[in-house]
Amino acid sequence: MRILSGVQPSGLLHLGNYYGALQQYLELQHEEQALYFIADLHALTTVRDAAALRTGTFEAALAFLSLGLDPSKAILFRQSDIPEITELLWILGCLVPLSHLERAHGYKDKTARGIAANFGLVAYPVLMAADILAFGADVVPVGKDQIQHLEFARDWATRFNLAFVARYDPQDPEAHRQGNERGILKLPQARLQETAALVPGTNGQKMSKSSGNTIDLFADDDSVRKQIMGIKTDSTSIELPKPDNALYRLLQLVAPPAEFAQIDASWRSGGKGYAEYKKTLLECFHARFAAPRRRHEELIRDRGAIERILADGAQRARALAAPVIDQVRRAVGIR
Amino acid sequence: MRILSGVQPSGLLHLGNYYGALQQYLELQHEEQALYFIADLHALTTVRDAAALRTGTFEAALAFLSLGLDPSKAILFRQSDIPEITELLWILGCLVPLSHLERAHGYKDKTARGIAANFGLVAYPVLMAADILAFGADVVPVGKDQIQHLEFARDWATRFNLAFVARYDPQDPEAHRQGNERGILKLPQARLQETAALVPGTNGQKMSKSSGNTIDLFADDDSVRKQIMGIKTDSTSIELPKPDNALYRLLQLVAPPAEFAQIDASWRSGGKGYAEYKKTLLECFHARFAAPRRRHEELIRDRGAIERILADGAQRARALAAPVIDQVRRAVGIR
Repeated sequence: MRILSGVQPSGLLHLGNYYGALQQYLELQHEEQALYFIADLHALTTVRDAAALRTGTFEAALAFLSLGLDPSKAILFRQSDIPEITELLWILGCLVPLSHLERAHGYKDKTARGIAANFGLVAYPVLMAADILAFGADVVPVGKDQIQHLEFARDWATRFNLAFVARYDPQDPEAHRQGNERGILKLPQARLQETAALVPGTNGQKMSKSSGNTIDLFADDDSVRKQIMGIKTDSTSIELPKPDNALYRLLQLVAPPAEFAQIDASWRSGGKGYAEYKKTLLECFHARFAAPRRRHEELIRDRGAIERILADGAQRARALAAPVIDQVRRAVGIR
Repeated sequence: MRILSGVQPSGLLHLGNYYGALQQYLELQHEEQALYFIADLHALTTVRDAAALRTGTFEAALAFLSLGLDPSKAILFRQSDIPEITELLWILGCLVPLSHLERAHGYKDKTARGIAANFGLVAYPVLMAADILAFGADVVPVGKDQIQHLEFARDWATRFNLAFVARYDPQDPEAHRQGNERGILKLPQARLQETAALVPGTNGQKMSKSSGNTIDLFADDDSVRKQIMGIKTDSTSIELPKPDNALYRLLQLVAPPAEFAQIDASWRSGGKGYAEYKKTLLECFHARFAAPRRRHEELIRDRGAIERILADGAQRARALAAPVIDQVRRAVGIR
């Protein structure tokens, strides 16, 4: 069972990234053969700053490792280290109807907002399918907004298997199943993340870097304190019960369950002010993330170690991609 | 001075390929550092038959070598052997406006004829630009129908140099020139082929494989004889002057100039029949192509030698691409 997930190298990680995706990704390393990659090629569709991209990539690797990714078990690699991915992008792309790409959510959203499409935006789902299919991933954890990408990957893998490998009847479900079993490209399964409700940012809206409402996992103590103390609350007075809000939901995510039960009781009965709850959140944050933050401090000083882990990961990832791509090349008649 | 040209691996070569392009390509090996590649990745946009593609690729290499390409001077390689090309396809593609691709001639022609576009068709010019730019080609010989592709390559290289390297004023021609000189991607020059008038096929229309009107360079003697004897002519009687037609124009291409002067004189005065002129064409064909056809016979038996030449070519081509792609990677912030 091979499982694959990627993250964008978009700079300092925050609680939204962690509870929204990373936490669940990291759990998978214990039960599966896990591949984690940093999607620096995808990032090129928008990033035009080499230093920022390099820092973001390094920071993403650092975050995975600080949060407990075990590089002796899981494979951590940089997408751009795997030339087989763009090779498969092209080969697979020759079977992809443009109409699929025109109805891809990302493309539709951006063009609807008047953003002039570049080729990279249109090609985005094809690169994503190549990521998945190159490594013969069995399972890909996805959020709801990524289900379409996985359906595309399955569809295009089937097209490839039909065109170049099996000569079976696609109308016959049993033949179809067998055909894909005999096929070169493995059809990945989506594993829908039971996402914790969206993680709210300090202003109550979804936490995201672009909204400037984050609580950062690895910022210095002072910045984290300011972020948490800055959580927007209302003017409910101390003695009254408090409404459901961002602070409440962050406490629910970060506090250990037993502690949260007590918090929840006082929240409903009243008697404590928001400032006190914010202090509790800060304490819970440090209790939860003390060890990762310490590892982050240590690792950040050893760039060489991170590079070695990424180089090792690239080598192991390419070893998994090699037999797949080799079969693909033979099937289409190149090399 | 580095010069690059590619051919599609589309099977047996005919006189149209030779006089339309190959003859002029091959002359360049004596004056320039020439790179010749077989565009098997481009072929994947339409070919769905591995055996046909492999044979076509082999046959294209064989044709180049039989016709006099000297592999100790020129570099002959297979496009799919160069992973740097699809890597650059992606990186460059992130700067390519989709609107450019939508007005590409190939895309417009095919969609106008109701052919459902696939991603490969849209991406075709980006792959072509990557071919050219990866090797820092100075000059690319093109037919009229390919000028747009070269203009795209120049435009996108400039966009890349602007976005990632030089910070100069694109409105100032001198700064623009210097900027591109300092840039990573070299702007290639088109060299418009003074094409011999279109080579007519045996039915008078443009010679092309799909029209089934070819005279094949390396077919067996009997087939060539049938093709030449089958050239369509009219019923002008022997004693009368003959009109300008396919047979006349083929003689003009294939016969040595001194011999053609005599042919031309009798053609205008009358006294010889078409059958006799066809025999002359057949003789001229064999006189002109006897040596290449002999080499073809020899080489076809030594598949290993062709593979070694292609492997050596790939190695030398990658050595030229490596410093370019390395700079590209640094400039955008990957690896």
